[in-house]
Amino acid sequence: MKIAVINGPNLNMLGDREQDIYGNKSLEDIAGELKETFGTHEIIFHQTNDEAKLISILHDLNTTVDGVVLNPGGLTHRSVALADAVKAVSYPVVEVHMSHVLARENYRKRSLVSGACRGTISGFGLNSYALGVESLMLLLNR
Amino acid sequence: MKIAVINGPNLNMLGDREQDIYGNKSLEDIAGELKETFGTHEIIFHQTNDEAKLISILHDLNTTVDGVVLNPGGLTHRSVALADAVKAVSYPVVEVHMSHVLARENYRKRSLVSGACRGTISGFGLNSYALGVESLMLLLNR
Amino acid sequence: MKIAVINGPNLNMLGDREQDIYGNKSLEDIAGELKETFGTHEIIFHQTNDEAKLISILHDLNTTVDGVVLNPGGLTHRSVALADAVKAVSYPVVEVHMSHVLARENYRKRSLVSGACRGTISGFGLNSYALGVESLMLLLNR
Amino acid sequence: MKIAVINGPNLNMLGDREQDIYGNKSLEDIAGELKETFGTHEIIFHQTNDEAKLISILHDLNTTVDGVVLNPGGLTHRSVALADAVKAVSYPVVEVHMSHVLARENYRKRSLVSGACRGTISGFGLNSYALGVESLMLLLNR
Amino acid sequence: MKIAVINGPNLNMLGDREQDIYGNKSLEDIAGELKETFGTHEIIFHQTNDEAKLISILHDLNTTVDGVVLNPGGLTHRSVALADAVKAVSYPVVEVHMSHVLARENYRKRSLVSGACRGTISGFGLNSYALGVESLMLLLNR
Amino acid sequence: MKIAVINGPNLNMLGDREQDIYGNKSLEDIAGELKETFGTHEIIFHQTNDEAKLISILHDLNTTVDGVVLNPGGLTHRSVALADAVKAVSYPVVEVHMSHVLARENYRKRSLVSGACRGTISGFGLNSYALGVESLMLLLNR
Amino acid sequence: MKIAVINGPNLNMLGDREQDIYGNKSLEDIAGELKETFGTHEIIFHQTNDEAKLISILHDLNTTVDGVVLNPGGLTHRSVALADAVKAVSYPVVEVHMSHVLARENYRKRSLVSGACRGTISGFGLNSYALGVESLMLLLNR
Amino acid sequence: MKIAVINGPNLNMLGDREQDIYGNKSLEDIAGELKETFGTHEIIFHQTNDEAKLISILHDLNTTVDGVVLNPGGLTHRSVALADAVKAVSYPVVEVHMSHVLARENYRKRSLVSGACRGTISGFGLNSYALGVESLMLLLNR
Amino acid sequence: MKIAVINGPNLNMLGDREQDIYGNKSLEDIAGELKETFGTHEIIFHQTNDEAKLISILHDLNTTVDGVVLNPGGLTHRSVALADAVKAVSYPVVEVHMSHVLARENYRKRSLVSGACRGTISGFGLNSYALGVESLMLLLNR
Amino acid sequence: MKIAVINGPNLNMLGDREQDIYGNKSLEDIAGELKETFGTHEIIFHQTNDEAKLISILHDLNTTVDGVVLNPGGLTHRSVALADAVKAVSYPVVEVHMSHVLARENYRKRSLVSGACRGTISGFGLNSYALGVESLMLLLNR
Amino acid sequence: MKIAVINGPNLNMLGDREQDIYGNKSLEDIAGELKETFGTHEIIFHQTNDEAKLISILHDLNTTVDGVVLNPGGLTHRSVALADAVKAVSYPVVEVHMSHVLARENYRKRSLVSGACRGTISGFGLNSYALGVESLMLLLNR
Amino acid sequence: MKIAVINGPNLNMLGDREQDIYGNKSLEDIAGELKETFGTHEIIFHQTNDEAKLISILHDLNTTVDGVVLNPGGLTHRSVALADAVKAVSYPVVEVHMSHVLARENYRKRSLVSGACRGTISGFGLNSYALGVESLMLLLNR
Repeated sequence: MKIAVINGPNLNMLGDREQDIYGNKSLEDIAGELKETFGTHEIIFHQTNDEAKLISILHDLNTTVDGVVLNPGGLTHRSVALADAVKAVSYPVVEVHMSHVLARENYRKRSLVSGACRGTISGFGLNSYALGVESLMLLLNR
Repeated sequence: MKIAVINGPNLNMLGDREQDIYGNKSLEDIAGELKETFGTHEIIFHQTNDEAKLISILHDLNTTVDGVVLNPGGLTHRSVALADAVKAVSYPVVEVHMSHVLARENYRKRSLVSGACRGTISGFGLNSYALGVESLMLLLNR
Repeated sequence: MKIAVINGPNLNMLGDREQDIYGNKSLEDIAGELKETFGTHEIIFHQTNDEAKLISILHDLNTTVDGVVLNPGGLTHRSVALADAVKAVSYPVVEVHMSHVLARENYRKRSLVSGACRGTISGFGLNSYALGVESLMLLLNR
Repeated sequence: MKIAVINGPNLNMLGDREQDIYGNKSLEDIAGELKETFGTHEIIFHQTNDEAKLISILHDLNTTVDGVVLNPGGLTHRSVALADAVKAVSYPVVEVHMSHVLARENYRKRSLVSGACRGTISGFGLNSYALGVESLMLLLNR
Repeated sequence: MKIAVINGPNLNMLGDREQDIYGNKSLEDIAGELKETFGTHEIIFHQTNDEAKLISILHDLNTTVDGVVLNPGGLTHRSVALADAVKAVSYPVVEVHMSHVLARENYRKRSLVSGACRGTISGFGLNSYALGVESLMLLLNR
Repeated sequence: MKIAVINGPNLNMLGDREQDIYGNKSLEDIAGELKETFGTHEIIFHQTNDEAKLISILHDLNTTVDGVVLNPGGLTHRSVALADAVKAVSYPVVEVHMSHVLARENYRKRSLVSGACRGTISGFGLNSYALGVESLMLLLNR
Repeated sequence: MKIAVINGPNLNMLGDREQDIYGNKSLEDIAGELKETFGTHEIIFHQTNDEAKLISILHDLNTTVDGVVLNPGGLTHRSVALADAVKAVSYPVVEVHMSHVLARENYRKRSLVSGACRGTISGFGLNSYALGVESLMLLLNR
Repeated sequence: MKIAVINGPNLNMLGDREQDIYGNKSLEDIAGELKETFGTHEIIFHQTNDEAKLISILHDLNTTVDGVVLNPGGLTHRSVALADAVKAVSYPVVEVHMSHVLARENYRKRSLVSGACRGTISGFGLNSYALGVESLMLLLNR
Repeated sequence: MKIAVINGPNLNMLGDREQDIYGNKSLEDIAGELKETFGTHEIIFHQTNDEAKLISILHDLNTTVDGVVLNPGGLTHRSVALADAVKAVSYPVVEVHMSHVLARENYRKRSLVSGACRGTISGFGLNSYALGVESLMLLLNR
Repeated sequence: MKIAVINGPNLNMLGDREQDIYGNKSLEDIAGELKETFGTHEIIFHQTNDEAKLISILHDLNTTVDGVVLNPGGLTHRSVALADAVKAVSYPVVEVHMSHVLARENYRKRSLVSGACRGTISGFGLNSYALGVESLMLLLNR
Repeated sequence: MKIAVINGPNLNMLGDREQDIYGNKSLEDIAGELKETFGTHEIIFHQTNDEAKLISILHDLNTTVDGVVLNPGGLTHRSVALADAVKAVSYPVVEVHMSHVLARENYRKRSLVSGACRGTISGFGLNSYALGVESLMLLLNR
Repeated sequence: MKIAVINGPNLNMLGDREQDIYGNKSLEDIAGELKETFGTHEIIFHQTNDEAKLISILHDLNTTVDGVVLNPGGLTHRSVALADAVKAVSYPVVEVHMSHVLARENYRKRSLVSGACRGTISGFGLNSYALGVESLMLLLNR
């Protein structure tokens, strides 16, 4: 199975940024652990701060992956365009968040992107990624 | 590890009720599959339609389980008392939903219980339970 | 035809409670009159202050009645779980209110349960029950 | 007993209009059935698309009928003037709807007219009219 | 000076309708008193329950009166079309209300028509009309 | 092709009324220009200040026109009854506005009628009508 | 008859302040004109920028005046304490505004003080005061 | 005098639960201290996590106590049924909270139950109970 | 112990003002009763209609009293400045209301001052003051 | 005349994406048809998923085109920056949508970009583009 | 240049009050530092807890200062009267806040006074004052 | 000291765009003046229309500047991602606006970015930049 893990704005700062919320591992560390855990599968990793690139990556993957794990970062709450992109592709997309967005500021409680995804996993720190990949495998019956 | 999977109102009707949303497996089927999947761990299963019983179960488990997977059903959106119960216990609680509540009616988009839990998993049908147990194991470093 | 008339919280206080709003007949009086009026049909009567019991009664009646007349009392406005229970059963449920809830306090103007029922009858005092039974008979073509 | 059944905008299109919501009987069919059912009583039937005419009809009936069954159609949700007219007359007015307005679009969930009426009956298709007449008879003790 | 006093829905019921709010004088009584008080001026009186007629009357008076006293009744709170008509004419329009609308139900506290008028007079019973005529004379410097 | 262009309240005042917003051409001028531009088609023109007449015109045209261009004027924002009438007919209705309602007062930004129409054209002055007729022709494949 | 005309914050700046809204007459000019117009009556004039003094003036006048004309200025929209003071006295209070507050900024559209007064007069420039005195005389039957 | 002190959901966890908010005394400690302080009076103590039991306890006490001190816990903010029960009984009910609910999360600032009680005491830790009993004695003139 | 009881706007009118809500005792009567009840303690009494004086009194008492009982009157709902003053002092402040503000008009249900106080006592008429003093003594462990 | 047709996020997926809403023609097909229809004019076509590029394209066209037809896609509802860009250029911009945004999800009903444009055309499928070009020609008097 | 620095409620408590938010310097310290920094200019300093005095000070300075730096304290968020006073004077007023009000409680995020001022400076502790004076000099081109 | 001045969307159009709001100087002019004014410090200037680039610039400057002056343009009001980027860096960021955003359209009154910055300076035209640099120097104690 081939799965893309796509990360939005500021996730390149993981390990550095607000460690009490996001922990001290970098995105590279997470990618490494994921690849180890799901060794028999192909895991692609993307990060960009750019909404337009996220949209284009989603479009371009349309025939090449079995599913996507998406951490939209701060675009979660506002981006109709990203939600539309999720609806425009045919593979399943699972939304993940490291922090528990529903327990944070009010403006983080609303997700425009969630409604377009198959499911949401929120609050498990770096484990949110592993659970996201796992959830896709379950959805696709592995 | 010992984990309790606790289900709120109407989940006893699974397999019967609104099959297009909730699928055709019963809660017993789900319990069976979970026990099989996580064979080396002890999984306890509860279902009740009663908010007060849910609260009491959460209280009573306080020193006997390592964590709880909670599907609060329709109490998710309104019950301050259940959220307070989650805050009152010392073990981690993970909220799960079979349907993707953030993609349904507006009144389901607000969760009072989420903010009290460690994390939320929503939208994966019966697999939400397995992911919930998995997430607890990751949180507890197994 | 077999019909259950199910009453939620505080309706056991009828005849006693706020008589200017609810009149001076007890629930037993109403049950008596209903049975007299619809003598050729079987009318079952339940009252409970317990949301969970209301839900379980609705579940348990699933194959044994032709329809239900439901006065959810104060649960009308808040209980997602009760609304879910109404959606989970296969017989028709008609919501009734003795007082005219749409003409009372703002918090009574919103009904979560209404949307799950087949219809609503509100404001006719104890006659709301007779009209509820009548409406079910019309729905079922007697 | 003499009762007027008054219908607001678009109800002249019954039988034609959005049949999945409103059924395939015309207003004339409904009037016929009502007169048959309540043969010993005098039933007057009005339909107009005109808010002002509805108001004037209500005024003019003030000393000549025992009660009114009112289906305000789309005026239900917005017309303060119609609600004021209901308050300005001395006979009881019962609001009826064929579809279950509380289970439809948000803008239909608010009724300005309801609060001025004695009661509301909603969701029983053409039977809403018969229940409306019945409710008036019960209110007036026949 | 020539002034038109224009009354909207239900004001034909004055003297009859909700006397605790609106008093026991009819619109004819009010017209009579006004004509007596402002004897040297021409006072025209209109009442209609019809929003469209109110609009047309406003249009038609455009070159024939010096000003208008408008009691829009229940249309006050909702009618964009009536407010647009007030904006479309060149003479000054003063809004009057017999009851004190700002001290009544919430839905009466919002006036769409007010913003299009030159001023508002509210709460003085039948004297609101005399004050309205007086205010026009002051505006027009008599 | 036969198309009706229907105008709501205050549009009879065009050319006269608030010229900075609506320009200085009368509705007759617009009708004349439209007939000239679309000479090979039959264009019917209606204007009324009366919501009820608008509804009745829409009903009556049901089998006689290919489509309707509707400028609901101030009824745009409030009239559920007019929106219901648009839904009750079988031909396509296109909503037009001369001013750009989405760039004006807040209470003009909400359109109840839009949702019932096939499309909306707003902000092109008198050209909105020509674009409305054009759009119908495109919808009907001429 | 003895009437007090009481003015709140910033009205001492009349004639100076935002002349396009408030005109170029000072409060003294207005007082002079009022006294001339209502020569046979005693008119007392107060202005203060101080909410507490307004409240105390209202209290102190309780047995000495027949009525009060109150222009609460910017306190209109926010002061529960001033509204409570109006409710605490036994003589009638009429609210006046020179500008048409219902046609201005949104935060001016809400009046906490209005609901405590007998009536409101708004939008007639300095004539609002004369109309206020007149309205009191009408209320008191002179 | 006989007074019942009734506690809602999660209050059985006092002394254990979120000690920074609720202190380290158990409900039994509080009951003991209360009985000592008010030795000459009969103080009954109830705690239940069950909304229905709270309602039934309130009903059943109707002729046997002089008043009730009610800490509704998390039901404070949502339970129309509990508020209705308070309205349905004839003895005075005083609402108490240990924490200062008006200074906590937004969803705790709204109390449906308060409006049905005679008064509210909030924020004094375990002393809220003693003040509640005291307030009842003052209300009943001891 | 030395305690100040501070009263805001309109409380000087007690005994006079809206007796159905506030009773017929004056503030002096209440002061007298309080001093009698708590004879061994020093009780200072202030009343002012002036927000600024309330703030200054609170500041000035900062090192001279053990605590303050504050009835902010109509300033309760709006005054950020008064709430800031409560936060700026080091002694405990308890908010009291004679009427039950949570059971009155909507605009009285929101208290900006409450959140800055240690606790709130509302609805016990003049006894609210005695309970307020009592609560301070309990807070300070007398 | 030279006109640019500019398309925002996800419009590159036309023909592929949600065909029930957007039809089965690609953007290239639409460009081709437009060029054919308006053969004597120069039509430039842009599509980008990038808000910043849209803004820059609008800036760069400032002296080179006569007008712009803009389909902002999902940026319609949220992008203040894009609306500011439309306001910053001197040529007219017309907003077009293929689907009827006012008849879709609530979050699509609000357009920040509309208010900055000259007009809006919504709901005519691929014909929205032709109508947009047409409208520009009418605005520019061709 | 002559500049007045005017401070509203509770700012006399600086240095004492909530030091984690407002620092440990008194207003006198700040005044001293400002006078030192801007030695060649005349800096007047006012502080009052009284809204009315703030208004009167603003009025009285009207011809004697070149500009005003205003820290309205808790009046920022509510006082229409103070905002009106700022609009009523002819010199420029700059609003300053020591704490960053936009990053604090929700009720501090709304400023009625801001809209009347020329600009706002917020969040720089005591330096906000120096920046305020600096900004006035820049506005006035020194 | 090294300070970066970073500008968001549309600020490249300064001098050209809406001159009545933004003045007639270009961003280059502003940069020139700033460098002159703060000659002994290093001032870096960036402008981009691209949210992602803004985020990346903020990240990349993390160890190389002492502080940042940020004018987020239209991203101010909506961009959670940009606010997250400000929180993710360790140097202080000051938000500046040339126009007074709190005195403009409602949608500009809410700033998501403000809460993440150290302070805000708004309304001083091009001087906002100089004040922003000045404020950073004060924050950093130069």
